[in-house]
Amino acid sequence: MGPADNEKKGAVALSSGGLDSTTVLAVAKSLGYTLYSLSFRYGQRHAVELAAARRIARFFGAAAHRIVNVDLAGLGGSALTGHMEVPKGDRETADEGIPVTYVPARNTIFLSYALAWAEVLDVRDIFIGVNSIDYSGYPDCRPEYIAAFERMANLGTRMAVEKGARFRIRSPLIEMTKAQIIRTGLALGVDYSLTHSCYDPDPEGRACGRCASCRIRRDGFEQAGVEDPTIYTTKEFP
Amino acid sequence: MGPADNEKKGAVALSSGGLDSTTVLAVAKSLGYTLYSLSFRYGQRHAVELAAARRIARFFGAAAHRIVNVDLAGLGGSALTGHMEVPKGDRETADEGIPVTYVPARNTIFLSYALAWAEVLDVRDIFIGVNSIDYSGYPDCRPEYIAAFERMANLGTRMAVEKGARFRIRSPLIEMTKAQIIRTGLALGVDYSLTHSCYDPDPEGRACGRCASCRIRRDGFEQAGVEDPTIYTTKEFP
Repeated sequence: MGPADNEKKGAVALSSGGLDSTTVLAVAKSLGYTLYSLSFRYGQRHAVELAAARRIARFFGAAAHRIVNVDLAGLGGSALTGHMEVPKGDRETADEGIPVTYVPARNTIFLSYALAWAEVLDVRDIFIGVNSIDYSGYPDCRPEYIAAFERMANLGTRMAVEKGARFRIRSPLIEMTKAQIIRTGLALGVDYSLTHSCYDPDPEGRACGRCASCRIRRDGFEQAGVEDPTIYTTKEFP
Repeated sequence: MGPADNEKKGAVALSSGGLDSTTVLAVAKSLGYTLYSLSFRYGQRHAVELAAARRIARFFGAAAHRIVNVDLAGLGGSALTGHMEVPKGDRETADEGIPVTYVPARNTIFLSYALAWAEVLDVRDIFIGVNSIDYSGYPDCRPEYIAAFERMANLGTRMAVEKGARFRIRSPLIEMTKAQIIRTGLALGVDYSLTHSCYDPDPEGRACGRCASCRIRRDGFEQAGVEDPTIYTTKEFP
């Protein structure tokens, strides 16, 4: 499961400042990897999320944390890049197909930057917190997509073609429920009060408690049977 | 070869302002596509290249031309992102492996943005001017890489998974020599004086004539047996 030999090896880990990616960082660290935490600034990224990602990188003693600007504005987008309303109340993970919060090719763009950084760092493991249970509506959260990206990475990089290295795109949460993710993180010592999930925080960065992302988070803690450390601006949950 | 039915269909075409991508735009246009030209601004991108890409988009009557900022600075890089010297004289396409001008995961990042834009535009063809003959040292210019990216795209996007659309990554130059590329473009009416290839232009944007990219270009025109319309700052070619 861990680094291929007993040396301390590095891994690039995508970090949104949220619950899932923070759990992934904990998993990667528990496997003995030196962490290189990578976050993205794009349309929807509130400063509060990036601040959370920074705190979390520090919490895990990451060797580096980088924020890459992803320029999607000129290409149009989805609710999360500021062109549509983020839905309230209704779960975004509707059974009726792919959510409106889907951002075209988002994970492909994110993983591409992660791949570039991994190659520069000479590390071969990339961790991503995709999940095909809670986010079954997103095509780029499914195992077959992750496997296809990995295959492409191993054909398109110098490290793989010239040096015979094999990149691995690792998605340890891909088949976990939210409750399982939370239990995994707590067992590894994650402080979830550092994380941020809300799509629509107030000016002080407090979670609304009502958006799809807050609801998934709250339900997860409830199902895990543990207390949610989040301070929500509402107590009247829909 | 052209759009799937007789309607006028769109295609995203990557445009660097250089000879190869300009030829690709000509090929796509000759196949009946409405062109959406996409360029990238990153470390090495001189303003002169982006100005060329704009001219070329206009020349072909593209429906739109977008420039996306690609943020590689924080992730380290290669000669072309400003961290190393661009080699002079020696061909970069050395037989001894992958050139120092290789940029980690570059085409993967570029194609990812193209995929995002294609999905927003609801078009399914993406044209890229990769070439596995003159650039055999680059892993991300090989047919097997392009095929793997296409497969990944068709697993990771809403358009493919929900609507059954098939993205196609089209690389019409992939097995052409530089001379064949130039002859193809001239047959399609390309004005190569609009294009820019030099890695190291003077302040007025004139090509040096000596860098690897200029040498490949000059050799291509020579081998094609046609006059190179480029104005070089030197007449003493190595």
